[in-house]
Amino acid sequence: MPYGYIGSMRAREGCRDDIINLLLSAADGLRAAGCQLYAVCTAPADADMIWVTEIWESAERHEASLHLPETRAAIAKAMPMLTGEFTRQELTVVGGLGVSS
Amino acid sequence: MPYGYIGSMRAREGCRDDIINLLLSAADGLRAAGCQLYAVCTAPADADMIWVTEIWESAERHEASLHLPETRAAIAKAMPMLTGEFTRQELTVVGGLGVSS
Repeated sequence: MPYGYIGSMRAREGCRDDIINLLLSAADGLRAAGCQLYAVCTAPADADMIWVTEIWESAERHEASLHLPETRAAIAKAMPMLTGEFTRQELTVVGGLGVSS
Repeated sequence: MPYGYIGSMRAREGCRDDIINLLLSAADGLRAAGCQLYAVCTAPADADMIWVTEIWESAERHEASLHLPETRAAIAKAMPMLTGEFTRQELTVVGGLGVSS
């Protein structure tokens, strides 16, 4: 069953949109890495928060993607713009609408 | 931009899979109501938790869906099987992979 990941990160003041552009620029390459969904979100109730919801073929393919040179470069570029406040939730996608099994 | 919703709910012991089946049986009808993604998930680290990630054309269409007779019937059926512990996060989907704008 597909692997789901929900993460949030807090941007330093004024950095949110630069981080979002960085996340969006990486999205196209993820399909070949086994990613089915990569939704970058803002939170109307908290202007510095960024949420990312991901669905991957497997936990292994998600883990492998973290070691790709382009992923590592994007993370390195984003880190100084983040406060260090993160949440993460690892999930198993059991079904629904718009989800491949 | 699409509306995102991430919710979690805690099932009473032994009820998780019945609730999941109820959620999955409702999924097909959601497309016509403006839903793009409805991913029902379990959490390997917590056997009684259910997570649902949703992407809708708009917040208005999501809100309208909550008043459909079939949604109200499913909620009424699920409620006695839930502990009452919920989380919810409302989001704006700004882009990514597998997301329609």
